[in-house]
Amino acid sequence: MPTLYNLIQGRNLDRLAALSDGIFAVAMTLLVLDLHIPLPAHVHSERELLAALGALAPQWITYGMSFLTLGIFWAGQQTQLNHIAEGTRDFTWIHLGFLFAVTLVPLSTRLLAVFITYRVALGIYWLNIFVLGAMLYWGWMYAVRTNLVKADTTDEVSHSICRRILIAQALYAAGAALCFVSPWLSIAVIVLVQLNYAIAPKFGQS
Amino acid sequence: MPTLYNLIQGRNLDRLAALSDGIFAVAMTLLVLDLHIPLPAHVHSERELLAALGALAPQWITYGMSFLTLGIFWAGQQTQLNHIAEGTRDFTWIHLGFLFAVTLVPLSTRLLAVFITYRVALGIYWLNIFVLGAMLYWGWMYAVRTNLVKADTTDEVSHSICRRILIAQALYAAGAALCFVSPWLSIAVIVLVQLNYAIAPKFGQS
Amino acid sequence: MPTLYNLIQGRNLDRLAALSDGIFAVAMTLLVLDLHIPLPAHVHSERELLAALGALAPQWITYGMSFLTLGIFWAGQQTQLNHIAEGTRDFTWIHLGFLFAVTLVPLSTRLLAVFITYRVALGIYWLNIFVLGAMLYWGWMYAVRTNLVKADTTDEVSHSICRRILIAQALYAAGAALCFVSPWLSIAVIVLVQLNYAIAPKFGQS
Amino acid sequence: MPTLYNLIQGRNLDRLAALSDGIFAVAMTLLVLDLHIPLPAHVHSERELLAALGALAPQWITYGMSFLTLGIFWAGQQTQLNHIAEGTRDFTWIHLGFLFAVTLVPLSTRLLAVFITYRVALGIYWLNIFVLGAMLYWGWMYAVRTNLVKADTTDEVSHSICRRILIAQALYAAGAALCFVSPWLSIAVIVLVQLNYAIAPKFGQS
Repeated sequence: MPTLYNLIQGRNLDRLAALSDGIFAVAMTLLVLDLHIPLPAHVHSERELLAALGALAPQWITYGMSFLTLGIFWAGQQTQLNHIAEGTRDFTWIHLGFLFAVTLVPLSTRLLAVFITYRVALGIYWLNIFVLGAMLYWGWMYAVRTNLVKADTTDEVSHSICRRILIAQALYAAGAALCFVSPWLSIAVIVLVQLNYAIAPKFGQS
Repeated sequence: MPTLYNLIQGRNLDRLAALSDGIFAVAMTLLVLDLHIPLPAHVHSERELLAALGALAPQWITYGMSFLTLGIFWAGQQTQLNHIAEGTRDFTWIHLGFLFAVTLVPLSTRLLAVFITYRVALGIYWLNIFVLGAMLYWGWMYAVRTNLVKADTTDEVSHSICRRILIAQALYAAGAALCFVSPWLSIAVIVLVQLNYAIAPKFGQS
Repeated sequence: MPTLYNLIQGRNLDRLAALSDGIFAVAMTLLVLDLHIPLPAHVHSERELLAALGALAPQWITYGMSFLTLGIFWAGQQTQLNHIAEGTRDFTWIHLGFLFAVTLVPLSTRLLAVFITYRVALGIYWLNIFVLGAMLYWGWMYAVRTNLVKADTTDEVSHSICRRILIAQALYAAGAALCFVSPWLSIAVIVLVQLNYAIAPKFGQS
Repeated sequence: MPTLYNLIQGRNLDRLAALSDGIFAVAMTLLVLDLHIPLPAHVHSERELLAALGALAPQWITYGMSFLTLGIFWAGQQTQLNHIAEGTRDFTWIHLGFLFAVTLVPLSTRLLAVFITYRVALGIYWLNIFVLGAMLYWGWMYAVRTNLVKADTTDEVSHSICRRILIAQALYAAGAALCFVSPWLSIAVIVLVQLNYAIAPKFGQS
């Protein structure tokens, strides 16, 4: 039996949304703090500056990938919260767990940018994406089970929300597994999956 | 007798909530800036990378603990503000004091991560948690005394809000006192208390 | 034919606005992190401190210019969103692309401050401004084509929004092209164009 | 004659408030990034850790002072915006100028913490506070002149808002002028003025 305090806690979905927007905004912008610019001492001409910027390619790629990751999960969380009528204490804490994983994205990005050829770094990056998806899935399952979902949300919408997470996670896992062939191939596949969800919604989505 | 300016100041609870969400969001995400990744020069194999990440355990533990701390007090402040009908200048400044303590959490976390075996570092971390609780308690007491609380808030709810803070602070103080036995034991107990409030609301709560 | 999930995604313009405000707020404040203060070891008198601060002029100029850039595009996005009735998934992703370019402003600013006499650095800074304008223009074109614009928005308003972006971008491009004469002249012209839009709306605006 | 675009720009006060809350939240939390903790190599006992923390007193004082500064001006801006019915393009840019000064507070704080005995550093810190007050005053004057103020705002309220800024700025200027006697005295007086506005509203306020 839940206590009184736990009944009155975590009802305010607006504040959960505001905290989420704030954390996503900071995480998306903090990624840039880890991007380095060439050292002036190494650059003596326009051509050398261009070459030095080109040599920083791994950090640009991981940066772009992480912004896509955050954008996709921000949109996913927004879609979920749009269909929730009211919060509870436990629902709030599931989403705080989700936000915890969001704050770790800049860190796993930095790890991947520095150790881009290491399977361990790629595995941790994938684990971060997996936890993001798992928390969102848990949040929706919990909301359905405890009747937090808005009355006008059809079963079709509910299934579509779950299926979207499961298919995306299957594709990410397949992409991450390719790191046993080549880390670069693995990153390329993950970025392609992300671009598919961000730009060209024609494949594997329902 | 309050002056006119003090009467018109600090009425807008929405902006106080927005500022709070912003400060919590930044503080939660800034914690990650203090997490270091292994230096590439020290890592020559997948196994070494895993080992190097494992050696950074103290910073992971303090990071997780601080995210829990911030999550607990964010939820606590939200619950309090949900029951307030309108703000006043003094109520706003009590909460600005609370937010001041929130901005110090990343700093006391960094201190604890670096000096994890020092009682002084643990004491300062506990003091930070204590001030957070004390400001929230003061804010509620003030709101009750000056009739800022919403009309539909029962005495039971009000008592439950106070009791929650007092019991939690008693448990934190007991946990912190254990640092005279062992700092690690102390941290373990504080994390257990926090997990109890975040995950398993079955014990010592009302 | 869009799938069900894509129909229910990205509807919430309020959260898009909140994420945008957060990202602009962080980007505007992060710029300051790249501003350095003189080293104490080099300063032995009040006069030397003033001189050392004066020597940091390039960073002050690029900082001021970037705050103006962010302010102009924040106001521009706000004006656009004020005239949109509801969002769609694709509209959201166009604006996430816009926000991606916003997060890059602190980085291209840092590059320009360090390599202020290099055409490559100025070219990248201009490219950043160009992408900001192009995404806003694309967003408005898309909203008009897919009937997301509010019913009370006249054609005149719509033309005025487009013309504003095109004229501003033409002026920025002309300013950037002057870097083949002199990078300093180029920066001066860009700042003048920005000040025109921020302070003295008397010229080239409709 | 204002152009059409300038008429439709900057109407949304909610987004101005959200951007302001974001910038204040980041600035308040960023201050902490400049606080250093003692180096582990210099600390070998509990007592040495306490002593090392005590030696960092100047940074704690400037940090506390800057949080007070930001809190006071956040409350001041909130009070002003609460009495504004709708925004205009020019009103928005006056407040963007105000926010520009807000983003500089962490920088002038850092300068003062490092050069705490220099009059130039104190003068720049005071200049920052002066610009904050001047922009708020200008914003209110502009709003009154162009009829943006809400209909239910009495002349008394309007005078009280202006007088508050003028008296506070006179006290800050007097405090800053004391730096010709002693920088420490000057800082002490400024902090006392701030505490007066934050905590003990009994003196010099109307």
